[in-house]
Amino acid sequence: MKKPEHGGDVWRYGKAYEILDFSSNGNPLGPPVLLKDALKEALERDIYCFYPDPTYLELKQAISKYLSVAEDKIGVFNGAIEALYLLFRVLNGKKVLLTPPSFTEFWYVANMENLPIEEVPLIEDHDCFKLNEQRLLEHLGGKDLIAILCNPNNPTGTLIRKNLIEEAVGMIRDGFLVVDESFMEFSHENHSSINLIEDHPNLIIVKSLTKIFSASGLRLGVVIASSDIVHKFEALSPTWRVNSLTAFAFSKLLRKTDAVREYLMNSRRFIDLERRRMIKKLRKIGLRPYNSSVNFILVNLCERANSRELKEVLVRQYNMLIRDASTFKGLSENYIRIGLKRPEQNDMLIKALNEVLNPC
Amino acid sequence: MKKPEHGGDVWRYGKAYEILDFSSNGNPLGPPVLLKDALKEALERDIYCFYPDPTYLELKQAISKYLSVAEDKIGVFNGAIEALYLLFRVLNGKKVLLTPPSFTEFWYVANMENLPIEEVPLIEDHDCFKLNEQRLLEHLGGKDLIAILCNPNNPTGTLIRKNLIEEAVGMIRDGFLVVDESFMEFSHENHSSINLIEDHPNLIIVKSLTKIFSASGLRLGVVIASSDIVHKFEALSPTWRVNSLTAFAFSKLLRKTDAVREYLMNSRRFIDLERRRMIKKLRKIGLRPYNSSVNFILVNLCERANSRELKEVLVRQYNMLIRDASTFKGLSENYIRIGLKRPEQNDMLIKALNEVLNPC
Repeated sequence: MKKPEHGGDVWRYGKAYEILDFSSNGNPLGPPVLLKDALKEALERDIYCFYPDPTYLELKQAISKYLSVAEDKIGVFNGAIEALYLLFRVLNGKKVLLTPPSFTEFWYVANMENLPIEEVPLIEDHDCFKLNEQRLLEHLGGKDLIAILCNPNNPTGTLIRKNLIEEAVGMIRDGFLVVDESFMEFSHENHSSINLIEDHPNLIIVKSLTKIFSASGLRLGVVIASSDIVHKFEALSPTWRVNSLTAFAFSKLLRKTDAVREYLMNSRRFIDLERRRMIKKLRKIGLRPYNSSVNFILVNLCERANSRELKEVLVRQYNMLIRDASTFKGLSENYIRIGLKRPEQNDMLIKALNEVLNPC
Repeated sequence: MKKPEHGGDVWRYGKAYEILDFSSNGNPLGPPVLLKDALKEALERDIYCFYPDPTYLELKQAISKYLSVAEDKIGVFNGAIEALYLLFRVLNGKKVLLTPPSFTEFWYVANMENLPIEEVPLIEDHDCFKLNEQRLLEHLGGKDLIAILCNPNNPTGTLIRKNLIEEAVGMIRDGFLVVDESFMEFSHENHSSINLIEDHPNLIIVKSLTKIFSASGLRLGVVIASSDIVHKFEALSPTWRVNSLTAFAFSKLLRKTDAVREYLMNSRRFIDLERRRMIKKLRKIGLRPYNSSVNFILVNLCERANSRELKEVLVRQYNMLIRDASTFKGLSENYIRIGLKRPEQNDMLIKALNEVLNPC
């Protein structure tokens, strides 16, 4: 079984860290100063020489404060993806419901466990991708079903309607609803379902904590669910799974509530403005960007280029990497995904796209 | 299922990093300067903001150089323990052979998959623990068996006879032999079986790369096996499993062959001298330390104390943590394990042990 392709594959082009990377989707503002300071302190104090606390008590206390969830409903993992790899072993479902296009690893982990997949494709409206809510709800009554939604969705950048998750959980008889909220902090509108956990033992939130802080390399993800389910996830996950530097740095960072809130507000404000600006520019050069709530934009190439070829041209000739979105289930070779960067960098991408697609 | 207890549980006592920790077993010399420099460089270059290369090409090249194994026979993991958690799913065995006392997680992972465990206990000779080689070899002919050996063994510190692994692999019909070599670098004698991998597709080496470099918090383990088996391990393990800082730092460190060789030689020389010195001192205060080849010593308390109580007294009254070895399968409450530290620290432990066990 071949692993799915992802953004951020700058390594393949032998110029990691030097490529202008629009293919991954971290925070364009870069990491908060507090995080870098905490990492420096961790190095000075030789924290990496010690095993992390296997119970991750301090880290969970900090996350509890950050997400307003009780500690016993939080599990910590080596990236949100580790939790996804454990999902079907913990939940013991017999079939999976997915809504393509969405995060490719959902398909990978279902295939890993040889589970049949039912699909309720998103509906492409002219400037956005929407859930087919009615068909989704109809499917949820089945037995032993595990439905996975991504909110906001990757790669489309769309939020799920606020009450839909609660309605959906109510429809599930003996299965589970898993919601991946890895991009929720990037959105101005908070549609998080974390507050539903208390009353809904068949709801599981999976979430990256590193993307919004521009720290994907530190690998920290969480599961928010009933304490029983959290315990099962952690029992199957290796001891000391989050490394000492990450545990130390995030324990410090997430306790600084005011500074973190300010960083998040600035990030969202910046992303919101920059996304609107880029959507206009992309339209101007003849492309069809979809509405997004977050830091990346799915773009329809309107048959003006093949996504794989366009990616190769941009990386070879311009040292810029975009995400060929054709590797997402349900998308043709007519789609790319662009992760926002700083305005001057985004402008360079527009210029490059224009040169390639509209040669005079 | 409750996770096994481990050394290094300084966190439980609320004074992490400040306790004198004899319970874990890293390198008493501390990390090589090169490693710390590489981590500093990684921070300065914001490497943690980037996803690691999911193929870990550079890291594998560096490990290949360090261990003299072809890159395609190396899998990298979030600590050796991640590989152990995947073991039975990859190898698809039906029963497990273990030699107590040994690393407690072997039992945990076998129980996790509900596999029956056969045991061939080590034989306690007056100053060492030995494999029962004949009984071990007799068991290996069975069907679908996965035998796990630890070489040198934790917690006894003993090496397995050089030719035994090759004989054992030869006896296996359709099962696998897994050898955990996480402590091999601590020993003056190199009994590694890595060179047998080429000719024996049913041999798998699992190994921590962080213990010897005093960097347990960075979580890096490897599997060395046929490329087919390595691929299966990696397919079941989450993408980006080794974090960016670890991947960067170890890619740098392991390429500096001369400096690493010198660090290893100094470490082994120091450990060898200090272990001999400590064994004499432990005997002098009326305890029975077992011969060890590595950086830790299993000690028989000769019924002068209960291991759990002794641990509590030392941590409360002396701020020193030892490993209560009664949590190892096959050992009674008459055993502790001591990880060597610097001579003056080790002397403090001897003094404390003497005060507690031999009050005047």
